Amino acid sequence: MLSPTPRTQLRRKRDRQQTDPTSLHAILDEALVCHLGLVDADGAPLVLPTMHARVGDVVYVHGSSGAASLAADREVCLTVTLLDGLVLARSVFSHSANYRSAVIRGRVRRVTDPDEQLSALEAVVEHLTPGQWDHARRPDRKETAATAVLALDLHEASVKVRQGPPGDPELVAEGDRRWAGVVPVTTVLGAPETCPALPADVAVPEHVRAWSA
Amino acid sequence: MLSPTPRTQLRRKRDRQQTDPTSLHAILDEALVCHLGLVDADGAPLVLPTMHARVGDVVYVHGSSGAASLAADREVCLTVTLLDGLVLARSVFSHSANYRSAVIRGRVRRVTDPDEQLSALEAVVEHLTPGQWDHARRPDRKETAATAVLALDLHEASVKVRQGPPGDPELVAEGDRRWAGVVPVTTVLGAPETCPALPADVAVPEHVRAWSA
Repeated sequence: MLSPTPRTQLRRKRDRQQTDPTSLHAILDEALVCHLGLVDADGAPLVLPTMHARVGDVVYVHGSSGAASLAADREVCLTVTLLDGLVLARSVFSHSANYRSAVIRGRVRRVTDPDEQLSALEAVVEHLTPGQWDHARRPDRKETAATAVLALDLHEASVKVRQGPPGDPELVAEGDRRWAGVVPVTTVLGAPETCPALPADVAVPEHVRAWSA
Repeated sequence: MLSPTPRTQLRRKRDRQQTDPTSLHAILDEALVCHLGLVDADGAPLVLPTMHARVGDVVYVHGSSGAASLAADREVCLTVTLLDGLVLARSVFSHSANYRSAVIRGRVRRVTDPDEQLSALEAVVEHLTPGQWDHARRPDRKETAATAVLALDLHEASVKVRQGPPGDPELVAEGDRRWAGVVPVTTVLGAPETCPALPADVAVPEHVRAWSA
């Protein structure tokens, strides 16, 4: 079960909270981008977009060396949001969004073990494009050292989900015939654009073709 | 010019920094979701997804009452990220993403003036679906009071952009014929799904049809 601590227990709209770890895993596995929140040296919040991959009950986050030094061994908040739809209700007040979001809090660990770092990088590359790790040239020691990877346990997390039609159907019974509904939002991978430095006869490999449009 | 302060001056990959306010405006205007970072009562970072709208040099953020009380009159960081592509390089090390992101920092103000609050809600609704404000039922006083809106000035912001092909074309000259390129990523609005509570003869209005698939 997720959310064992008071600070990951939703205080409002509790019906939107999910406590099944498979929801958390599915959100992390689908999202291409995450947002890493930390507190800077002056005590102010800072939120940076980055990329991640889940391995079991750990999420690995690709960090710039700057963000990694700021975040290492400190409390962070990793938030992942999948927007699924714009909820256009009859009343402005009931307008909403369909979404699945995960908020993970905890002390982050900078990965220093070379083997764990390499497998974390593999997870991130494979998360973004399955099959790409075996296709690409592996990082050498210098490159690995220049790449910061952070690890965050998933044990303190909350998942919030809203799906379905607008929340003010009672207005229809009151005679409101205004249109209301949901505009679905999806993230789409398009046709691969080959690097212009390559000779024209280099074809898009099967794993990239299968992953994209 | 954006980024007048040291903390919004990029320390690395400075070539990705943009200082033109029109880039910032375009990113805020295109994004459907933003991430609001704040520091909670225990000093830990918290990042919540929400929705926003820009009006001139201010961004209005729709907040839950909980987030609004946490954030009011405190330092926040509002981050908006548009993912444009997966950059599949030849070497793992050069893998990247094409994106446009904005990081806005500053002290947030909770909007209490009813007129400003109403026009901020109008901006948020119109941002998400142009034409929807005139279509929907306006909030009454009770609903307006129950909706928290935060305002953040755009004067301390940084914009970071990466576009274009993978960054390791030199490997081609060295004889590497591995495919490399970009998989474009786009956010797509689908065909509107009418609320099941409505009679079958209520048609999707023109402003929603024009906005979606």
